[in-house]
This record gives sequence, structure tokens and C-alpha cells, in this order.
Amino acid sequence: MEQQQGADVFFLLVGAILVFAMHGGFAFLEVGTVRHKNQVNALVKILVDFAISTTVYFAIGYTLSYGITFFAAAQTISAGQGYELVKFFFLATFAAAVPAIISGGIAERARFLPQCAATALMVGLAYPLIEGTVWNRNFGLQDHLFASILGAPFKDFAGSIVVHAFGGWAAFAAIRQLGPRIGRYDRSRPMSPPPSSIPWLAMGSWLLCIGWFGFNVMSAQNLRAESGLVAINSLMAMCGGILAALLAGRNDPGFVHNGALAGLVAICAGSDVMHPIGAFLTGAIAGGLFVTMFQVSTNKWRIDDVLGVWALHGLCGLWGGIACGIFGLAALGGMGGVTFQSQLVGSVLGAAFGFVAGTIVYWVVHSAFGLRLSPDEERRGADISIHKISANPEDDVRLGRL
Amino acid sequence: MEQQQGADVFFLLVGAILVFAMHGGFAFLEVGTVRHKNQVNALVKILVDFAISTTVYFAIGYTLSYGITFFAAAQTISAGQGYELVKFFFLATFAAAVPAIISGGIAERARFLPQCAATALMVGLAYPLIEGTVWNRNFGLQDHLFASILGAPFKDFAGSIVVHAFGGWAAFAAIRQLGPRIGRYDRSRPMSPPPSSIPWLAMGSWLLCIGWFGFNVMSAQNLRAESGLVAINSLMAMCGGILAALLAGRNDPGFVHNGALAGLVAICAGSDVMHPIGAFLTGAIAGGLFVTMFQVSTNKWRIDDVLGVWALHGLCGLWGGIACGIFGLAALGGMGGVTFQSQLVGSVLGAAFGFVAGTIVYWVVHSAFGLRLSPDEERRGADISIHKISANPEDDVRLGRL
Amino acid sequence: MEQQQGADVFFLLVGAILVFAMHGGFAFLEVGTVRHKNQVNALVKILVDFAISTTVYFAIGYTLSYGITFFAAAQTISAGQGYELVKFFFLATFAAAVPAIISGGIAERARFLPQCAATALMVGLAYPLIEGTVWNRNFGLQDHLFASILGAPFKDFAGSIVVHAFGGWAAFAAIRQLGPRIGRYDRSRPMSPPPSSIPWLAMGSWLLCIGWFGFNVMSAQNLRAESGLVAINSLMAMCGGILAALLAGRNDPGFVHNGALAGLVAICAGSDVMHPIGAFLTGAIAGGLFVTMFQVSTNKWRIDDVLGVWALHGLCGLWGGIACGIFGLAALGGMGGVTFQSQLVGSVLGAAFGFVAGTIVYWVVHSAFGLRLSPDEERRGADISIHKISANPEDDVRLGRL
Repeated sequence: MEQQQGADVFFLLVGAILVFAMHGGFAFLEVGTVRHKNQVNALVKILVDFAISTTVYFAIGYTLSYGITFFAAAQTISAGQGYELVKFFFLATFAAAVPAIISGGIAERARFLPQCAATALMVGLAYPLIEGTVWNRNFGLQDHLFASILGAPFKDFAGSIVVHAFGGWAAFAAIRQLGPRIGRYDRSRPMSPPPSSIPWLAMGSWLLCIGWFGFNVMSAQNLRAESGLVAINSLMAMCGGILAALLAGRNDPGFVHNGALAGLVAICAGSDVMHPIGAFLTGAIAGGLFVTMFQVSTNKWRIDDVLGVWALHGLCGLWGGIACGIFGLAALGGMGGVTFQSQLVGSVLGAAFGFVAGTIVYWVVHSAFGLRLSPDEERRGADISIHKISANPEDDVRLGRL
Repeated sequence: MEQQQGADVFFLLVGAILVFAMHGGFAFLEVGTVRHKNQVNALVKILVDFAISTTVYFAIGYTLSYGITFFAAAQTISAGQGYELVKFFFLATFAAAVPAIISGGIAERARFLPQCAATALMVGLAYPLIEGTVWNRNFGLQDHLFASILGAPFKDFAGSIVVHAFGGWAAFAAIRQLGPRIGRYDRSRPMSPPPSSIPWLAMGSWLLCIGWFGFNVMSAQNLRAESGLVAINSLMAMCGGILAALLAGRNDPGFVHNGALAGLVAICAGSDVMHPIGAFLTGAIAGGLFVTMFQVSTNKWRIDDVLGVWALHGLCGLWGGIACGIFGLAALGGMGGVTFQSQLVGSVLGAAFGFVAGTIVYWVVHSAFGLRLSPDEERRGADISIHKISANPEDDVRLGRL
Repeated sequence: MEQQQGADVFFLLVGAILVFAMHGGFAFLEVGTVRHKNQVNALVKILVDFAISTTVYFAIGYTLSYGITFFAAAQTISAGQGYELVKFFFLATFAAAVPAIISGGIAERARFLPQCAATALMVGLAYPLIEGTVWNRNFGLQDHLFASILGAPFKDFAGSIVVHAFGGWAAFAAIRQLGPRIGRYDRSRPMSPPPSSIPWLAMGSWLLCIGWFGFNVMSAQNLRAESGLVAINSLMAMCGGILAALLAGRNDPGFVHNGALAGLVAICAGSDVMHPIGAFLTGAIAGGLFVTMFQVSTNKWRIDDVLGVWALHGLCGLWGGIACGIFGLAALGGMGGVTFQSQLVGSVLGAAFGFVAGTIVYWVVHSAFGLRLSPDEERRGADISIHKISANPEDDVRLGRL
């Protein structure tokens, strides 16, 4: 018993460390995708967002989701070798993924402190509502709507909807609130600012992919519930995403490295019920969806989503929630126990809630503080404007740039 | 029982994640070692090769090696908490190391899609033959040749031969098929294109070293077979490789960071039977071997092996297979159960098979599609030629390079 | 029983791998903080220091600390699935942190081989004295001074004092021995050489943060002693450090990323006894302490500590040892079992021992070999002077710099 507990703590801890590493991935993915003058801001934003998220999730959010408060004495809360504490750590790294997702969409033009305030509201108040509803069956929605009426509880094993669609659609709202970067859509043909560094973009993607196996497999939360099926399905969906994005994106490195992420976003929900071939297809469709919709949304619809987080997390997450109701069916080789209608309704509701929450939070923050850098600050870049330093200070001194 | 199974799945999963991280290491090692104009291609190659390898290994290769096919229903194959599925994941990351090794040797001049086709053939058909023969005792070679005649089964605990020598000698064949880069050996003194970035090269080496502990220790495949001896021997061999390469390479950073890898390549085979001091010596010899033979092969023999993968994986792997028959002997402090003749014969056969397989596969692909970039494409670099983008697109725009 | 042992080996191995990854973090943190002309040296120093440290700790240091020698046959020492060997691996990664800490303080001006010699002395002889005294209760200090007189054994769960304060104060001595870099304090206002790359600095910080969870949690050394409290406290201290450094450092990216480390340094000692809110405060105070004292020590006191390792490891480590005697008290929500006086005395003694050991070792090495690069070598940079290559050799060739 005691040994089992120690092993469970270890299992979940490794998951928490891996998902924590994903936040480094978010940071470097943004560093490589934005322009040089906004690299420092990307790094500071992700790290500070993580700290703010963890703090407010500790103080408020986790209690809203699970009804557990940590203000008891250490002796009490560390019972069971501190399993509950590591569970908090694990789930805090999920909660902090929401502002990390949004960060990439609103990059290069948001003010720093207002964006931190929005992070606190999203993680402290909004995210716990969806997290608790889906995973802790708060408010009875799982029982009374999904299980009773739609045939099965809404399944979101590792967060295609709870984390990714929620975050991606909240980002969509935040991007609309902020508006496009200066000069982005001034002419008939959109001007696409080129990424600063493919190696940093790739490093971000690698850290995300590596950590994602913890995100998915450790979502079982203990060794008895752990399933190797989740691991292989994550692997196959990632490979499907890479290959589809390679084809759809014509060898473009940004698409290929984000294609891996698209597959992983989509597989979260159904990774413990699909057949590996279903997972591969789910990932491949996500890879193609990302490439297509990133281009459509940023070029045609003129939504200035810098890292394509709406297409990546919002749409591929939405697809993943629904795909769980397709490839999870026993008829398609899955483990069953899911229904298409539950997944469809739950996914759409989750995405819609993300959009509503994002709309409210970013509107409130914008109204109160002003979310956007001044045109002059934006032109000089967030690094110099906010952090008084560029990404390569030595070069600035050497080249007399500063 | 159930708990044991969960723990084994966890153990092997951590190994799989660590070896997956090594592929990021392969990518960044190549990014740092090649010239700027080929960095993007290095990144895309490794990621796409990983996806192709996993897919063909899932569809064909794993069945060839172990007789297990994954086309059953998910319920069936996920028995035992999906241990078999995680084992596939673990071994797929090994299989995918073969094209990752070759990639470094043929860098800066290979066409992309033909190279992908070669990857599929190597991982789908060639690698399973050696993997199954050594690790699954297919074809009776282990029983009838090694155990009966040479005194002991051929031992290759974590793949000095099966993965590294096989991949390194296949790379040797591929390099010969492709020929040297333009201008490399036009003059009496070879022109050595300088590496683009030592920090990226070092990052690649670090990711490889970190992941390598999973490559070696988790090769036990379950907790009962796990041995801390493997961990300390990997550590000591890595240190031996670093220090020998430092001395032989006269403080050169490329040699030092690859010296760590040389030691780790060499220790794979015998890591569970050597004494730590034997492991240190095995690694030190590998470090010296790599530095010497990289210089000899690329400068004297004019083999244009960009990352030195033949010296690193081919020769140090070969040495590692043989070293297992030396320092693994009880007389030299080892655990015994190995014979020098088994290790010598098995190692040479494995390397030879890699060379033959590489020769056939890359000849077939070259004949069918043409493996090599046109001289003009090569001069412009694989990034612009294949991926239509450079590693730092913003700089190109800013400096008017594109 | 056997299964328990396997699980413990696995647990400690994951810890060892994580702390090993921290060494990559040390390397890249230094790469990003130093100037371009010293990046290669930073990378080679950390990797070679790690190899030297491990080797001398294997040969001498570990025996001094724990009385275990590894020169027996492999069969003997690999008993219990090699638990003792993995324990060595884990503790060797701690020992090697000492020269890695010092490295950052003496960057940009130290000769390479003398610095390697100092590493061997620090890890082979000096560090085992403090490690054995605190953790193995050598010399009876824990029993006769702390437990009997000061009310409780001196507690340093994961090394705020044994590793960080010891290393940071030894670095202080080494920095004094070396003197400031040329031109650093020539004028009335100190000249601060700008860091070369914030992204590399950040990558170093991320690797350190990720690995740190292994440093702290796995210090329990087995699954029965493992505690989730250590994990959440590390998390909360890190977040406290980030937020305090953000405020004190006015959004500066170097301060924010080092602030995370400051919190983690400070929480090592008491991470298994504090309440998470105590941990947050401990980390926050450390973050503020680092920012303030880095500025005071390098600008006012003219101590040319390049990475601020004295403030980061020396002072925040010292604070962490003492904080364990404050927030560890049951009265402040902690688990108790510690006394303020034990922690104060032990912390000050540990830091003082680091300063004395560093003073002796770096004076001896300086007297014997000369620790400092010639002014000309220093001006050209350690990369070209020592390693005959720069961090971006291709650029040098292209721009005709070499």
C-alpha cells in the first residue's frame, strides 16, 4: 500500500516535470516564431505567466475545481506521501498552459502587466469552471446532460477541449480584442513578418513533444489507471501530424514542427480509447487542418494570430474532442464507451466557453488597463519597450544599435 | 502483479521518452555542425525521418523483428496495461535512430524525398533483420552460430552494433554513394566547411547524452532486469570519452562534445556486464578512436562524412561490441557470460550487414530517384532549395538577402 | 522486496538523469550570459568539469564521504540491482555542481587546465568533507554539536548549504583570487559587459529548473522517503523567486530567469519540512536578495562575479539553510524537527567552509600554475585563445573575421 502510494507519487511527479518542460517549449516556440525584437518578451511572458498561474491556481483555482484548499498545516496536506500535492503540481502545469497558448496568439503587441492580469483571471476563475465541470463532474453537467441524455459522459482524457480548445478559443477572443499588428493588413496582400529563428522554433516544438508524453500518459494520475495505449496513440498521432503537415505545408519547417503539435493536441481527448491507426488518422487530419486553417485565418480572414494558436489549439483541440467520438467507437477499432453526440456537444460547448471567457476577460482587462502597446512601443519591439534590453545585447552594443 | 505491470510500463515509457528526446539531440547536433544554409533541412529531416520510421516500423518492421502485428482491436493489444505498446514505442525510437545517424553523414547535399524513401527501406526492411536476429534470436544465428560454436550468444545489450555500428556503416555506404560536397576535395588540402554554431552542436550533444541513459538503462525493458550497473557504466564511459577527446582533440569543442557520444556509443553493448573502470576505459578508447579516425577518414581518405557518423557510430559501435568481449570478462572485473570470439564475430558481421544494407538501399534509391541535389541547389543550400526558407528568415528580409 | 529495490533504483536514476540535465543548464546559462568570444569555453568547461568531477569523485571523493569504494568486482558492487551504483551517479551529479557553480563566477578570464585542476581538488577533497559531515554524519558534528547542543541535527535536505552555499562561497574566493576582467572597473562607473544571448541564458535556466525537481525530490533517495511536499515546495519557491525578481529587477529577463533559480537554491534545505506558503515566501525573499545583492556586489563592491553565482548560490543558499529553521518550524506551518539555531550555525559554518576551501584551492592552483589568461588572451577571448575556434566559426570565415 505504502509502496503503491510512493510509486503513484513518482509517476505523477514525472508527469508534472514533463508538462513543466512543455512550458519551456512554449517559450522557445514563440522565441523562434516572433521577430527578433520580441524574443525577450516571449521568454519573460511564459515564465512569469507560469508563476502567476501557479500562484492563483494554488490560491483560488484548484479549490474552485476540486474543492481542496492548501491552507492547512503541512503535516495534514502531506499525508499519503503528499500525493495530493503532486496532483496539484501536475494540474497546475495544465492550468498554466492556457495563458501559454494565448501568449503565442497575442505576441508582439500586448502590454506586459495587463496581460499578466488577464492570466490571473483566466487561470484563477475561468479555467477552473471548465476543468471542474469536465474532470470533477461539478455542476452535474456530466451526469445530467452527457451521461443521461447524450449516452455517455463527455470524455476528454488529457485535455483536447479542457486545455487546448479552451485556450485556443480564448486566444481567438484576445486576438480580436487586440487587433492585428501595425502594418499587417495595410495592403491588399497581407504582410507576414518572417520568423526570427527556425532552430529556436524547432527547439520549442521538441520540448513540447517530449513533455507531451507526460501530459497524456500521466493524465491517468496513477499506475493502476496508466495505459500504454495512451503512449502509442500519442506517438502515432504526432507522426500523422508531422507527415500531413509536411505534405500540406510543402516541406515548410514551421508547418512540420507545428504539425507534430497539431497531432498531439488532437489526440489528448481520446488517447486512451482509440486504436493506434485511429490515432494516426486523427493526428494526420489535425496536421492538415492546422496548415490549411492557419493560412486561411491569417491571410484571408485577417486574424493576426502570430503563432497560429487558434488553428493549432482551438481547431485541432475541437477536432480532437470530436474525433474521440469517432475513432473511440468500438466499430472503428476503439475501446468504446463514448458517443459521437456527447463528444460533439461537449467539444463545441468547451470551445464556446473558451471564446466567451476570453472575450470577457480580455475586454475587462483592456477596458481597465489598456492591453495594447503604443504604436511607437510596438515598432521598437516589446523587448526594448518593456524589458529595456534586446535578445542579443552584446550585438547591439557592438553594432552601435542601442 | 498488476502493480508490477504498471511499474514496468512506467519504466519503459520513461525510457521511450528519453530516447525520443535523443532525436531532438540528433537534430540540433546536425544544426550546429552544418553550415547555416542547411540548418532547416537538418531539423526537418530528423523530425520527418522519425515519423516515417515509426510509421513503417509500426506497419512492417516490428512484425519482421518480433512477429507482433498491431492490427488487432485496441482492446486486445492494450492488455497488460499496454506493456507491449510501450515496448513498441521504446523500440521504435531505436529503429528511428538509424536514419538519424545516416542523416548526419549525408548532410548538405542529399535530396529530401529520396532520402525519406531510403529511410523507409532501412527501417522497414533492413534494420528488423539485424534487430530480430540479435535480440529476438530469429534465424537461429544466436543459437547455432554464437552459443554453440563461439561459446556464448552475441551480446549487444543496448545496441552498439544493432543500432550504432549498423547505422554508422550504412551511413558509410550512403556517403560513398552520394560523393563529397562540391569543392570539398578539389584542392590538395581538403576544404573543411566550418560548423555554423557550437552552442547548437552542444545542445544536440547534451540532449543525446541525457536521453542516452534511457537508451541504455531501459534496454532492460522491465524493473526486474533493470541494473544500476548500466547507469554507472554509461556515466563512466561518457566521462572517459569526454576526457580522451579533450586530449586527442586539443580542447576542440566539437571533439569534446562528440567524445561524450563516442563513449556512450561504445558502452551500449556491454554496459550490463563491465566493471565501471572497464567502462571508463572503453569510453576513453572510443573518444580517442573517434577523434583520430574522424580526421583520418575525412581528411586523408576523403570520405565526406559531415558529422563524422562513420567514426562515431560505425567505428565506436564496432569497438563497443568487441569491448564487451574484453571488459565483460570476469578476468577483467566484468560479470562474465561473454566470449571474445562471439563479440568479435558478431560485431564484424553486424557492421558488415549495415554496410551491405546501406549499399543496396542507397543504390536502389539513387538509381530510382537520384539522391543528390543539383550543384546549383547544393550551392544555394538545402534550406532554400528544398524548404524555400532559411534558418533565420527575418535576417534575410532585413539584410535583403532574399 | 526485489520489486521495491527495482523501483528505488528507477526512482533514483530518474533523479540522477534530471540533475545531469541541470549541467546542460549550467552550460547554456553561462553561454548566454558571457560575451560571444567566451561561449565555447563555457560549454567545454562545464562538460569537462563534469567528467573530471565524476572521475575524481569515483576515485576518491565518494569514499571520503561515505566510505564506499568501487574497486571491487562488478558482481559484488552490483548487488541489489546496483542501487549503490545509482546512488553514486546521483550524488556525483551533485558533486559536479560545485565546479559548475564556480565556473560561472570566474568566466571570461580563467585559464582552462588550472581551472580543471582546481575542479579536481574541490570535488575530490573539499566537497566530500562537507558532504560527509552533513549527510553521512562524519566527524560527529551532527551528533555532538547540532543534535546535542543546538537542539536538532543540521538539516539540509537537498543541499542549499552542502552544494549551493559551499559552491557559491568557494566561487567568491576564486573570484577574489582571479580579480576582475580587464576594463571592468577602470572607470568610476563600472562597465558591465552585455550578455550575448538572452535565449541561451533562458534555455540554461529552463534546463536547470526542470532538472531541479530531480535534485530536490529524489534527494529522498528511495520511494518510502519520497514526499510530494518537496515537489510542491520547489514549485512554489520557484514561483516566488520569479515574481520577486520580476518586481525587484524591473522586468529584466536575466533577473527573472535567475530569480527562478534563486528560489530553487533557497528551498533545497527545507523543502521537505516547510508549508507551501512558507516555501513561496522563502523563494520570494531569495529572488529579491539575488537581484539586490548581485547589483550591490558587482557594482558597488566591485566583485566581478560574471553570472552572479555568489549572490545566487552563496547568498540564496545561505538564506535557504537559515529559512529552513524559520519556515520549517511547526509554529509557522512547517513539519517541525528543526531549530533556528542549528540552521543558523550550520549554514554559516557551511558557507565559511566553502570560502576557506575555495581560498586554499584557488590560491594553491594559482601559485602552482597561474589561473589567469594573459591580457591579450583575455581580450581575444577564451574561445580563440584556448579552443582555437569561436562559437560561430562559419560566420568568422564568411565575415573574414578569422
